[in-house]
Amino acid sequence: MDRERFNKQIEFIMEIDKAKEVFRNTVLFDASRTENDAEHSWHMAIGAMLLSEYANEDNLDMVKIFKMVLIHDLVEIDSGDIFAYDEESAVGKYERELKAAERIFGLLPEDQAEEYLNLWLEFEDRITQEAKFAQAMDSFMPLLHNYKTKGLQWQRLNVTSDMVLSKNKKIKEGSTLLWNYIKDIIYDAVEKGYLD
Amino acid sequence: MDRERFNKQIEFIMEIDKAKEVFRNTVLFDASRTENDAEHSWHMAIGAMLLSEYANEDNLDMVKIFKMVLIHDLVEIDSGDIFAYDEESAVGKYERELKAAERIFGLLPEDQAEEYLNLWLEFEDRITQEAKFAQAMDSFMPLLHNYKTKGLQWQRLNVTSDMVLSKNKKIKEGSTLLWNYIKDIIYDAVEKGYLD
Repeated sequence: MDRERFNKQIEFIMEIDKAKEVFRNTVLFDASRTENDAEHSWHMAIGAMLLSEYANEDNLDMVKIFKMVLIHDLVEIDSGDIFAYDEESAVGKYERELKAAERIFGLLPEDQAEEYLNLWLEFEDRITQEAKFAQAMDSFMPLLHNYKTKGLQWQRLNVTSDMVLSKNKKIKEGSTLLWNYIKDIIYDAVEKGYLD
Repeated sequence: MDRERFNKQIEFIMEIDKAKEVFRNTVLFDASRTENDAEHSWHMAIGAMLLSEYANEDNLDMVKIFKMVLIHDLVEIDSGDIFAYDEESAVGKYERELKAAERIFGLLPEDQAEEYLNLWLEFEDRITQEAKFAQAMDSFMPLLHNYKTKGLQWQRLNVTSDMVLSKNKKIKEGSTLLWNYIKDIIYDAVEKGYLD
């Protein structure tokens, strides 16, 4: 065992513990509190695993999807979680997150640093089928939470159905079926008064 | 899309949100609080992904490992987390967890219920190389947390080095290299007074 290599891996494992303290806007299904990035990434990985049958493409590389999903929000350790509908805070977001990705993945041995930085970039670029499906799940999960908690955060943050439809339509690039379901629950949310 | 099938998958996704409220004995690296099962499973999945090069066997099925790791603690939604060194509470643990596994995975469509129940059993049985490595990571992660927090929970819960060595030696079935590292840090923990 190359101890220098191993120590870098341990350093990284310790550093990413901080994702457990990066809280998002999404509330748990029992509405008791918001969730953090570690919890979200775990839940999204299971969601991706269970719902991959609805992806637009067959034969997705699931190892790549798991890796992507597990690491996709690590950058927020440095840059923080930005509310999906906050256009103002989104200015310069990519640059801040790229800098964070370089620092955080840079803690790893060179080959792994390169692999995970590239996976993060692939996720952000949303070009491959794996990235499209992973991104679809990243939108799908909070929408499900919002709908099932009767629009608690939509109301608190003044989000409208137009905003939700426009912001999340990228889901269809990864899964037309999941996007159809999301449209159904958004219309239902409007009907039930969860969302304006 | 078969809506009955899909609704079962959504039901399961909502049910497992409860893992975010099952707290373990392990404390975060900054010692600020204990972690929950969702956070632990996420962290362990990344650990397994980064450290798989140290597994005793090459060519592990990483998809299987990711799935196993992500779901391994879901049973604790019903049966709760049992402290690793608590022999008394461990009586009947397997039966309680099996019942929980049947209920929780039983929420899924039949094919997925069977797949994930079998993966959970495979993890518990520790026969395949994937299960051995996943189990090694399940022990490795809390040991690393304990060591790096100067034995906070070891001391609070009166755990001795003999107990740690005996309880965790199964790590070597999955990875001799990780077991060697763990032995080193346990000896160091004794030397530094973190552990009796």
